[in-house]
Order: sequence, then structure tokens, then C-alpha cells
Amino acid sequence: MSMPAQRRTSRDIRSDSRLDVLHAVLSAGETTRNAIAQDTGLSAATVVTIVGELIDEGIVVETKVTAGRVGRPTATLGMNPQRGRVVGIDVAETYVRAVMFDTALNRIGEAEGAGDEHVLEPDTIVEGIGSVLDLLLAQEGVARESVLGVGISLPGLVQGPDGVAVVVPNWEWRSVELDHLRERVGMPLVIDNPLRAMVAAELWLGRGRSASSMVTVNLGTGVGAGIVLEGKVLRGATNSAGEWGHSLLMLDGRLCRCGRRGCVEAYIGVPGIHQTLRELAPAHPLAEVELQHDFIVSLAESARGADPDAAARETVTRTASYLGSALADLVAVLNPEVVTLTGWTTWALGDLLVPVARERLRSEAPGEAGAAVQLEVSTVSGNSVATGMAMIALERTLVDAGLLTTRIPVAL
Amino acid sequence: MSMPAQRRTSRDIRSDSRLDVLHAVLSAGETTRNAIAQDTGLSAATVVTIVGELIDEGIVVETKVTAGRVGRPTATLGMNPQRGRVVGIDVAETYVRAVMFDTALNRIGEAEGAGDEHVLEPDTIVEGIGSVLDLLLAQEGVARESVLGVGISLPGLVQGPDGVAVVVPNWEWRSVELDHLRERVGMPLVIDNPLRAMVAAELWLGRGRSASSMVTVNLGTGVGAGIVLEGKVLRGATNSAGEWGHSLLMLDGRLCRCGRRGCVEAYIGVPGIHQTLRELAPAHPLAEVELQHDFIVSLAESARGADPDAAARETVTRTASYLGSALADLVAVLNPEVVTLTGWTTWALGDLLVPVARERLRSEAPGEAGAAVQLEVSTVSGNSVATGMAMIALERTLVDAGLLTTRIPVAL
Repeated sequence: MSMPAQRRTSRDIRSDSRLDVLHAVLSAGETTRNAIAQDTGLSAATVVTIVGELIDEGIVVETKVTAGRVGRPTATLGMNPQRGRVVGIDVAETYVRAVMFDTALNRIGEAEGAGDEHVLEPDTIVEGIGSVLDLLLAQEGVARESVLGVGISLPGLVQGPDGVAVVVPNWEWRSVELDHLRERVGMPLVIDNPLRAMVAAELWLGRGRSASSMVTVNLGTGVGAGIVLEGKVLRGATNSAGEWGHSLLMLDGRLCRCGRRGCVEAYIGVPGIHQTLRELAPAHPLAEVELQHDFIVSLAESARGADPDAAARETVTRTASYLGSALADLVAVLNPEVVTLTGWTTWALGDLLVPVARERLRSEAPGEAGAAVQLEVSTVSGNSVATGMAMIALERTLVDAGLLTTRIPVAL
Repeated sequence: MSMPAQRRTSRDIRSDSRLDVLHAVLSAGETTRNAIAQDTGLSAATVVTIVGELIDEGIVVETKVTAGRVGRPTATLGMNPQRGRVVGIDVAETYVRAVMFDTALNRIGEAEGAGDEHVLEPDTIVEGIGSVLDLLLAQEGVARESVLGVGISLPGLVQGPDGVAVVVPNWEWRSVELDHLRERVGMPLVIDNPLRAMVAAELWLGRGRSASSMVTVNLGTGVGAGIVLEGKVLRGATNSAGEWGHSLLMLDGRLCRCGRRGCVEAYIGVPGIHQTLRELAPAHPLAEVELQHDFIVSLAESARGADPDAAARETVTRTASYLGSALADLVAVLNPEVVTLTGWTTWALGDLLVPVARERLRSEAPGEAGAAVQLEVSTVSGNSVATGMAMIALERTLVDAGLLTTRIPVAL
């Protein structure tokens, strides 16, 4: 039952229908009014009205008109790519990556800057973000005025009683740093954290098109879960939901970098996978590979082929088994329709991890929940955090233009 | 963003406002139109309209009218207890307990029948439920026609592609048994599972009055979590959400009765607590207590007082510590405002468990999520499963009367 803060008005409802229509157009790429009515369950009349409004507002365009064998000609609809640009930026500890899309969600270009995980000075990080953004604009020849919105993912972004803050180890930002960031960007800005960004990408461009409850699991240095329930992103009381990487796999187990023992991340985060290999085969050449990305790529190579390396293979199997057990916990609690895997460990190892993890998940998650869930590698390619932030920036743009209300999961 | 299946109409909105008003009246016991407007955030005019409708429909009554110092006299409002009766029934493996309420949620009476956990014949169980219901009606002198609805909690109730089924070990019911139950009861019937019932009770009568995200944890033979997010009960894709008791505390740990190793339930379910004691002190007199309820009551007695039994005390401390760690996982994933504890282990041991569990929870749950969450013993006393099923039956009655829509969390 809804609380006062979530009260809905008739404006929200119009907005819900608009969002459904937009979602249908974005998902399909090209579609028709009839197909939208089928996809959304809205009446044909409502679809005609909403599409008319969206065309008037320059959000949607008729891309071509086809004469049918009977009746009126059919117009093909798509998003209007000319309405402007949106940018999504993934700020990680070791890099800043920015991706630009047009309003039809075509990827226009991207730019990256190297971060330095030992430089924790907020001013330096803010300037790093600003200069990657400037670089991307220059590279694509896009004027600042053409950018409708910028979405920036900051690790550890939370919502507290005193507003928004960024809380990562050794990297504490309060509102002053966020104001500084807003100033430096100088364009409409929305910020959120990587799990929320990742799941927004899945919601708009991946399995979220068809599933209403879904968990998207990010596998990289850290691991976490973006959660969608009843078509909405779960944020939690302090925007901290989804920290599944810091739930227990093993009481009193391996020490996690968060300080807790036995966290999921300590087993299936990249340093955890490295530790599994070292425990299995301390003298193995892979144990000497220090850079995380190199390690994962080499591990994947060694574990593949007709004659795979035994220790590499066993490391992958154990990791997949840990992953399946940890996913079973999520499925036990949330009972989602779909779990998708994303992140750079997934891109390197996903096809090797999924079969073992799926079997483990099905045998360990409670009966119906385990039987019902589908485990898949995400179809959203590339940097899904940057992509998701661009989606969130687009949502926010539509809200700010009065086309949607803030009831939808837009960010902070 | 909402999926077609969750589309809302203006009727839903009116219904949301009605639900808010009803919630405010039920929560307060006695209230006024002004207080409702304050509690709900609705306009005074809307409250006046809705209250008028609810009075016309016999749901709400004016209990007294007080002349104020200035302005018009103020009417005190309450639920109309005379509108009828609702019954909630908790069907467990070893007992059937039925509780009757009036429509103002005053407890009218209750009845219990002993089950036999070795008799798994559906006909016998259905007849057991029917006879407890008959007993309660006779005992309270209530005619069947005065009962607006009956809510029955069945363990392991899930929703599959072929409809609803009851799935517990050695106790598989499909639609035919449920039809039989419906027939035997012969009154408007709604069924759901214990976790959903328990959290409905908390939502209407406990912390759910003030928190919009909440987890209610049941501690008994089994353990599980009822989850409320944004004011709504999380059911999951197959009505199986909340099986936190079968998430991992310890990979490859104790064998759980579900067949998995290391489940939370294997440590903090009553048989798990018994095992902890036996591991600590195999020859302890408490290790010989076979009946679960007797064991927990004796354990609580031994662990209290100025000179508590050391093994009993340590068993309680370890249990509290396991509980805190396992709750930290829930908080990491869901980031709720509140966690409440319920169930008969809680009634016996809650005050001993909470301080240790709370400390563990705060230190192990991720930063802001752990700092923000409140851990409390539920204020909903008695059998919260039966109470919650009565709440769900009342909700369903209001829906069937066209006063609310099915968008609210009513059961199957």
C-alpha cells in the first residue's frame, strides 16, 4: 500500500502510458502504432494520442509510410535521433569512460581517460571527468548546447539524511564536491551509482524489455547486483540496495576488502578468482599475473580449447560454482524471472561460467524459484555503466521537459 | 517503468487514496478527518469525500463528536466493527490455529486444533482446517453469513505456470486439493503463504504503519523473511520471495532439511539452535529436550538471570551472532529502513538476541545501509500468521466489494 511520499496523480498515469510507449519505441527501434498498442496493452486511441504528442514534441518521428494492401497506410515510428545528445560517464577507480548517444539511442562515440587509483583528491577526479567530457564533445564535434543531459556514475553513491554523498574507501565526497562536479560539467547533470546505471541499461536495452523482475549481476574487480522488481529499479532506503557482493558466501571465510569475512566478492571478484588459482596451484604462471584484466583474459585463454590447463579450468569451475551458490541466495530472497550477468569478467569468462553456475543455481535455489529463473549473459554490450547513465540522463531530460514525472526511477 | 500488466487506471488512484485513508483509520484506531489528511498527505477535501464514501458503505463510522473551542465540532472516526467478521487461519505442520477479528480489527476469539505431522493426507488436513473453523464459529456464536472472508496460510504456497500449488516436503497439493479446501470452507476464501501473511500483519498493525521498506523475519522451526518495498509486499515471480532461511550462511556448512548445505535456517532455526548447544555441550541436560518449543523455553530460562548457565548463554550469543550476520546479507541486498523479528523463538529469546544481533548487523552490513537500518522485535503479538491472513481476507473483502482494486497486495 502506497505511502504518502509515493502518491500518484493523474499526471503520473498519463506519464506511465507515455513511458510504456517510449519504452516500446526504444525497444523496437522501428515500430508502428498498432504494434505499440499490442506491446503495451494500451488502447489504439490512447496510443494514437500519445504518439501524436511525442511527435509534436520532437521525441518520436515517422520514419516511413507504407501503403498496406487494405486500409490506411502504415507509418513506421522511431525515436527522433536529431533531438539532441545524451552522455553517460562511468567513473571508476582506474579510468573515466564517457559514451555519447543520440536520442534514438544510437551510439555516437566514446572517450576514455586514465584515472590513478592513488590520486584521491576530489578536485583531480572532477577535473578528470570534465576533461574526458570535453574530449568527447570535441571529438564528435558536438556543441555543449546540443547535449540534453549528462549522467555520471560514481562508485558508492548513497542517499543519507543530509542529502547525497559518495562513500568509497579513502574517497569521501559530500555535497561540496558534488556541487563542484555539477559546475565543471556545466550541462544538465544526473548522478547515480554503477549498480543502478547497469540495471538501467538492462532495463531499457536488455532483458528488462520483457521481464518485470530481474537481477543484473556485475562481475569485475567488485561484484554487485542491480535489482528490478515490478519493472522498477530497487534503490533502497539509502540508495545502497544490491550490495550482494558483500553478502556472505562463507561465514568467517576469506577476508574481503570491505573488512568483512566471507563475502561473495572475496570469492568471485577478480582478486578472489586470483586467490582461488593461487590456492589451487601456487606456482602456476597465472599466479604471477598482477594486472587484473590481464589475469582474467589469460585465465580464460588457458581454460579454453581442446587441451585446457587443469588449474585454470578448475579455477573457472570453482568460480562458477561459487557464483551459482551466491546467485541461489539472491533467487531465494527475490524470486526474479531472470538473472543476467554483465561486467568485464563476464565478457571474458561468461560462456564458461554460465553452464556450471546455472546447474548449481537450479539445484540450490528453493524449488519453484530455482526452477523458474533464467540465467543468461547480458545482451547489453560494451560499458553498460556508461550506457545506463546515458539512459538515466535521457529519462531525466524527459522528466525535466515535463514529458514524464519523477515517479519513474530517475536518479538523484 | 511499469509493464503493461501493471498499468494503472484512475480507478487505481482513487483506490490508492482509499487505501491510504483506511490504513490511517486502522492504524490510529480512532482518528479525525484532519489527522487523516496530515497522515496521508491527501487534501482535506479528498479526505472528506473518501471518508463520506466509506461511511456510506458502512466501513467507517463516526464514533463521537466533540465540540471544539473554535469552528465546527470534530468527529472521531473509527472502523465499523459491526460490518462483519474476518477469520485468519495458520496451518502449520503440527497445528491449525484460527483467529477471528471484527472489521475494526478487534480480536474476537480464537481456536486451535492439533495437527499430526505424520498425517499428510490432504483430505485429513482439509477436514482439520474445516473443523477448527467450525469450532471457532460455534464458540463465538457467529453465523457463517456474518463472515466476510477467511484467509488461510498454507506452508509452501507458490504460483506456477499451471496456477497455484502447495509445495512442502511430502505434502504436494495441486488445484484439486485447493478446490476441496474452498468447498469445505464454504465462505469467501483467500490463501497465501506464511511469510506473506506475517508481513501483512506487520504492514497493517506493526512497523509497516510508518516504514515504507521493511523486512519481517520469522524465527521458529523454519526461518524466512517477509519483504515490503515501497509499501508493497514482495511476492516474486512464483510467490516464493523471502526464502532467506535457505540462503547461505556457510558454504558447505551444516546440512539443512531442504537438502542444501549451510543455509541460515540450519543455524538459527530451532533444530539449528539445538545443534549449536549440542556442539558446545553434548552432555548438557538441554541437549536431551526433544520438543522444540520446550527446548526454546528452557534455553531462554537457563540463559537469563544473575547466574545464567554458561552453555545456554553461549548458545544464545552464537545464535544472535549468526542471526546478525544473516540479517546483514538481507540488508546489503535490500537496504530496508526496518527489520522486525517475529515468531515463537522471538517471543522466547528476542530480548536476548537483539543486542548482539544488532551490533553484528551494524558492523557487517555495508556502510550506509547498516547505519540506517533499525532492528526491533515486532510489536504485533500473538500468531502473526493467522492475524496477517485475517488482514489479507479483509483486504480481499474490500476489493470484492469494489472498494479497492487488485493492484494492492492481495493474495492469490
